Amino acid sequence: MAPRIQIVTLAVADLDRGLRFYRDGLGFQTDGVTGTEFPGDETNPAGAIVMFKLDGGLVLALYPRSELAKDARIALGQETSGEFSLGHFVSSRSEVDALLARAEAAGATLTDHAHERPWGIYSGYFRDPDGHLWEIIWNPRASDDPT
Amino acid sequence: MAPRIQIVTLAVADLDRGLRFYRDGLGFQTDGVTGTEFPGDETNPAGAIVMFKLDGGLVLALYPRSELAKDARIALGQETSGEFSLGHFVSSRSEVDALLARAEAAGATLTDHAHERPWGIYSGYFRDPDGHLWEIIWNPRASDDPT
Repeated sequence: MAPRIQIVTLAVADLDRGLRFYRDGLGFQTDGVTGTEFPGDETNPAGAIVMFKLDGGLVLALYPRSELAKDARIALGQETSGEFSLGHFVSSRSEVDALLARAEAAGATLTDHAHERPWGIYSGYFRDPDGHLWEIIWNPRASDDPT
Repeated sequence: MAPRIQIVTLAVADLDRGLRFYRDGLGFQTDGVTGTEFPGDETNPAGAIVMFKLDGGLVLALYPRSELAKDARIALGQETSGEFSLGHFVSSRSEVDALLARAEAAGATLTDHAHERPWGIYSGYFRDPDGHLWEIIWNPRASDDPT
């Protein structure tokens, strides 16, 4: 299997709320809600989705939790944090703090104060409006190399 | 906020099981379990982690669910599928089927037979040993452009 991920899709309760958070709050670029021509039904997922093009060709997508469950043919679960986190590197300690403050102002929840970790990074987490974790990280040794 | 994600971290029940699935089963490259010099305790997360370097500089990490909860200072939740999915594009319909079969042989669970979606792709999902969804996708219109 080629070592690649082209899309990270986040389950959301409300596409418009997610769109506002990521586009208006964090500043990510998007064409907005697309795929609305596919209405879906009780068993077939609707196509409405929000996609953000990220650096490096990765796409971050928002898709209703109910439709992702139908699309994958799994039981619809409750919103849960802690299944995964998305790591975002910045180039200074103050940028970590500033970005966490910006996310909070946009509607995210900070889970703790940013702090140093024993493995040498300074970081803090926020939960987006659907509970998805982002870790904002400054690595003093190599601020843009995540390894 | 710059539009980027450098790390996708998946919560796992057992680092070694995840390592075997992604390295031995799917063929992803890794240095194995690193960070074992940080033992952690009841409230501070241990540092042991598995990282795979993916195309485009993205890192896929496996980290114990318990330690992610401590690191983010959130309550430890139960394993849940459907909070997110990871999209992986291949260049033919038969590659979708072959990759799903390979994942299943490696210990994944297929949630359904791959099939055409109304929006023009052919895809199917598997759940990794920790329940995390991957969608394997062939887009006949542009096999390596996810948008």
